[in-house]
Amino acid sequence: MPEHFPDTFRIPLPDDFHVHLRQDEPLRVYVHDLASSFGRAIVMPNTTPPIRNAADLRRYRDEIIDAAAGYPWFTPLMTFKIAESHSAGQVRQLAAAGAYAGKLYPQGATTNSEDGVPDIRAAWPVFEAMQDSDLVLCIHGEDPTSFVLDREDAFLPVLEEMVRDFPRLRIVLEHITTSRAVELIRSLPDTVAATITVHHLLLTLDDVVGGFLNPHVFCKPIMKRPEDRAALAEAALSASPKFFFGSDSAPHPVGAKENACGCAGVYTAPVAMPLLIDFFERHGSIAGLREFCCERGRRFYRLPESDYEVSYSRKPWTVPERYGVVVPFRAGSTVVWTGSRPEPVQGG
Amino acid sequence: MPEHFPDTFRIPLPDDFHVHLRQDEPLRVYVHDLASSFGRAIVMPNTTPPIRNAADLRRYRDEIIDAAAGYPWFTPLMTFKIAESHSAGQVRQLAAAGAYAGKLYPQGATTNSEDGVPDIRAAWPVFEAMQDSDLVLCIHGEDPTSFVLDREDAFLPVLEEMVRDFPRLRIVLEHITTSRAVELIRSLPDTVAATITVHHLLLTLDDVVGGFLNPHVFCKPIMKRPEDRAALAEAALSASPKFFFGSDSAPHPVGAKENACGCAGVYTAPVAMPLLIDFFERHGSIAGLREFCCERGRRFYRLPESDYEVSYSRKPWTVPERYGVVVPFRAGSTVVWTGSRPEPVQGG
Repeated sequence: MPEHFPDTFRIPLPDDFHVHLRQDEPLRVYVHDLASSFGRAIVMPNTTPPIRNAADLRRYRDEIIDAAAGYPWFTPLMTFKIAESHSAGQVRQLAAAGAYAGKLYPQGATTNSEDGVPDIRAAWPVFEAMQDSDLVLCIHGEDPTSFVLDREDAFLPVLEEMVRDFPRLRIVLEHITTSRAVELIRSLPDTVAATITVHHLLLTLDDVVGGFLNPHVFCKPIMKRPEDRAALAEAALSASPKFFFGSDSAPHPVGAKENACGCAGVYTAPVAMPLLIDFFERHGSIAGLREFCCERGRRFYRLPESDYEVSYSRKPWTVPERYGVVVPFRAGSTVVWTGSRPEPVQGG
Repeated sequence: MPEHFPDTFRIPLPDDFHVHLRQDEPLRVYVHDLASSFGRAIVMPNTTPPIRNAADLRRYRDEIIDAAAGYPWFTPLMTFKIAESHSAGQVRQLAAAGAYAGKLYPQGATTNSEDGVPDIRAAWPVFEAMQDSDLVLCIHGEDPTSFVLDREDAFLPVLEEMVRDFPRLRIVLEHITTSRAVELIRSLPDTVAATITVHHLLLTLDDVVGGFLNPHVFCKPIMKRPEDRAALAEAALSASPKFFFGSDSAPHPVGAKENACGCAGVYTAPVAMPLLIDFFERHGSIAGLREFCCERGRRFYRLPESDYEVSYSRKPWTVPERYGVVVPFRAGSTVVWTGSRPEPVQGG
């Protein structure tokens, strides 16, 4: 029973549990787009070079905090890129430096994963150390040796092994795309959750290759079938605590998308919240929106309620064709909802 | 049992039973690339404007023959683009003008099909007239209202209806891509055949979206799963008279491929024969190659044996990065086989 939303409503400032921010000058732009809508964000470590150790992590966090100076409500939640060579001591140092999670990239699974983990079982001791340090394990869950549409499902047995061998390790299967992944996540213990992106909620493979080829919605894992999208939507709209929002927003300059070697990634940060509100108005409720974007993720990551809130109003705007050199998701189209500047929770 | 081919061998000059040649100046380039390797070619009518009537067909044929002046062995086999408004008289005029086939494009199925047939059953009287005139019906067999990976299989029941209602109509399901299409074609009477392209024999969806996005192998119908490719390979290598070569070679300027609205189509004309020879050497025989490229199609179309033959030699060459403004299939890679200039059959 969808609910017609009031023309203005307030929610706690949402968090984004999976985002790419890049580095240096571009970072300053991307942080602006992200921090305009979100309070906290799990920042992916597959920068060039990657975030591998405590010193890198501190330096990258400082860089982000500096870039986000105009956004006092914004806190980056740092991660590191798992290597099978990480020692238990290094993992403890990363935890002490404030890491929230380590990210597992199977080698070759996506952008900047050439230095990912080639043999996941060789990283078992790293997962053990992460479990001991109470770090979250974030996973790009694809087996890159499988056919492109089967890669996520082919990874699921590995996830099951991890859950069996590390019963206290909190695990997030990132940006899930298939009905089988949804089913498995539901069936696993509460130590296991999944993020869902806005583009996987809204699109299927039809939107990439069904008409003209559209590089701007090409991503990894690639969108799947309508039945898969329906399963993701059901999960996001459900009362399960296991599914929450992570945008996987990934800025690629237009030249890296529109050429013979198109990079994977969709830049959704500027439009994610308006589109999610629209999705929940059509299919769910404000309570459901709040659970998906503001509550379930922070509970899983054991974060306090946000000190900020934001007001969204039915004020349509046209998505610019470019944010700097990046073509955003839904460029040129009209989105309905406009967010206010976040404000501290009154009486909080 | 693959057969190691001799370093030089002769075959009848192959034919291409599905090709796009465009018009005007570009046509002169594309005819060169095609006529260098093929004797006859079924030329698609989805030009701008399309080939709809006898006068258009004659004019387009003259244009092609003029452009192919240096290739005395080359004969274009003309087609027209079916509209549900075609009268029986118009169909007879097209046959009298020398049309070999009419091409059915479901509206919206591929490049330049906005003016295709919206309701296929409304074209039943056209098929009736084509049957009466002994014209071949070539079909882009996709239901564009289905999910992209299901479109070909969703069309198959329509094909079955056509075969039931027009038992004497020769039908070619063009550029098939799925194992179900292969199965159905096998099971239907000998009035029904299918073409297979070289890119669908060699690639799967992995090659389009499995790594970086590759617009140069994006086509309609899109490549499917490894099992589907295996079924196509088995069909091409089999003794069935129902499967023969049609390249669907389609030149798009690089700017129309590498941008936010990538056009569908792969330019294979310059490399199709070397790649097919390589395929048959790895999986089949020279006899099989000859059946697939030189015999089955002409028998289905009731054409005589070629008056020309060509010699292929194991002389590797590097595929240019561009043919004019078009990026060819396998640009920059090495292919093994080089064809001679076609020569009249001796004692023929």
